[in-house]
Amino acid sequence: MKSKESRVGLKGVLAAVLTPMDEDLNPNHRAFAAHCHRLLAAGCHGLSVFGTTGEANSLSLNERLAAIEALVESGVPVGKLLPGTGSCALTDTVRLSRAALEAGTTGALVLPPFYYKGVGDDGLFRFFAEVVERVGDDRLRLYLYHIPQMTGVDLGLPLISRLIDAYPGVVVGTKDSSGDRERITTLCREFPDFSVLAGTETLLLETLRGGGEGCISATVNVTSRLARRVYEAHAAEKVDEADALQERLTQLRASIEAYPVVPALKRLMAVLTADDEWRNIRPPLSGLDEKRAKDLLSGVPLADLF
Amino acid sequence: MKSKESRVGLKGVLAAVLTPMDEDLNPNHRAFAAHCHRLLAAGCHGLSVFGTTGEANSLSLNERLAAIEALVESGVPVGKLLPGTGSCALTDTVRLSRAALEAGTTGALVLPPFYYKGVGDDGLFRFFAEVVERVGDDRLRLYLYHIPQMTGVDLGLPLISRLIDAYPGVVVGTKDSSGDRERITTLCREFPDFSVLAGTETLLLETLRGGGEGCISATVNVTSRLARRVYEAHAAEKVDEADALQERLTQLRASIEAYPVVPALKRLMAVLTADDEWRNIRPPLSGLDEKRAKDLLSGVPLADLF
Repeated sequence: MKSKESRVGLKGVLAAVLTPMDEDLNPNHRAFAAHCHRLLAAGCHGLSVFGTTGEANSLSLNERLAAIEALVESGVPVGKLLPGTGSCALTDTVRLSRAALEAGTTGALVLPPFYYKGVGDDGLFRFFAEVVERVGDDRLRLYLYHIPQMTGVDLGLPLISRLIDAYPGVVVGTKDSSGDRERITTLCREFPDFSVLAGTETLLLETLRGGGEGCISATVNVTSRLARRVYEAHAAEKVDEADALQERLTQLRASIEAYPVVPALKRLMAVLTADDEWRNIRPPLSGLDEKRAKDLLSGVPLADLF
Repeated sequence: MKSKESRVGLKGVLAAVLTPMDEDLNPNHRAFAAHCHRLLAAGCHGLSVFGTTGEANSLSLNERLAAIEALVESGVPVGKLLPGTGSCALTDTVRLSRAALEAGTTGALVLPPFYYKGVGDDGLFRFFAEVVERVGDDRLRLYLYHIPQMTGVDLGLPLISRLIDAYPGVVVGTKDSSGDRERITTLCREFPDFSVLAGTETLLLETLRGGGEGCISATVNVTSRLARRVYEAHAAEKVDEADALQERLTQLRASIEAYPVVPALKRLMAVLTADDEWRNIRPPLSGLDEKRAKDLLSGVPLADLF
């Protein structure tokens, strides 16, 4: 089993937080803060802002810096934030990671540089090493963000091992959005001091049982209440109850993940908050068309959300 | 045939210009300007700075803005510049495109937003439309940058057609780095007022004969002299001479393209200029190892370069 005591940082149920936008498609700081407070109230242990779900790569550096500042000012507890700070550009990743540290957050979730393909482990290692060296702050807790379906970049186990060895206590965990159960199990087994968070709540219970920390998921924007119940049943060692709740949670997620996930979640938020501003989305993403929105809204048990 | 008179902008042999970097991996403005002047002297009709070869996506917005400003100040003729202004983020693409216009450049080479995959033509159309609308300047000449092996995004002909129809005189051309001969021929035939530039000088003569404008290529950083001779032989309707020169050019490129192209070109530049600073490269790219560098340098006819 893992020596959990040696780990730092977040565990449990984390939302990959949506970024609400105004009519001009600028982040709406007020709505963003309100959503973060709502998610914590609904049971999230933590908030991973500015990831794929948060449309972070559709925002400029300054938009990301301003949004994190506004969020902290709104009183969201910084110890619960795991902001995405990745970018194709080394200098942007360094700047965002420093800003996250300065804001007092628990860690930084860092994408591999995703423009160049097939660069090999040496280039990827050098990128992450430069990030750590240039940030130059031993408070840094770097989580590797593995999402090959978007990045086209594979963070293989040899690379992860090399990074952990080079920066122990700094390269501390991963969000694994590969959806690959076996990979997650292997990560938990091979790297006992490393925090593994699955990219979907479908794998929440399995990841916890395998020794991982939990999940960071897009759909947790609306499933956090039920996801938290799974976590608590597991923590209380109520095996059957945890299984039954996980089954419900998996079904709930399945009713959403058949649709493009960020558009579907923004559409659900518009209904749940009675605020159509939630439907705004930055291109290249597009809102659901009316036919699909109708199917979504008739298929999801709205009363089970949040 | 194409009604070439209606076209604006650059044609002929364009280099996808390398970005020289100092020891701290910051763009070296002085060396950058010197290289641009050298390329023009060696026969380039134009310079596409800040593309894939220029490691543009490894630079921050401010680094790109500062470098273009320094370049213009150095006296490089702005009418010969086709800067890459693409980014995943709408707001960065708008900002960079505006800056390019303000500097007086001939056009802007724009990547599709490349983080999100499978977003569909509506989302991509909306992205480019927002760029055009937000730049809000009818001097804009937008070239679509098609390089699916890096972006994971396909700019299909229906999308291109839609953009040309929506923004005639603004969406004016494309750099096509797909390496797909048939696609390039089809683009030239289907869109007679649209400027088609191949992403490799291997297709220079074929593209010119098919009605395209020329090429924008990484390897033109070192093959510009010979590439220009192909262009001139074609312009003078010296068919056999053009064929023979293209064959030599294709061979010359082949001796380089077997290697990772940006590292190989930077290594060649270090030798050609006797300045090892040229070997600096920003991660995730890495310099060639000594074994491969030796193979490269022994296989390329150095006297044929520039």
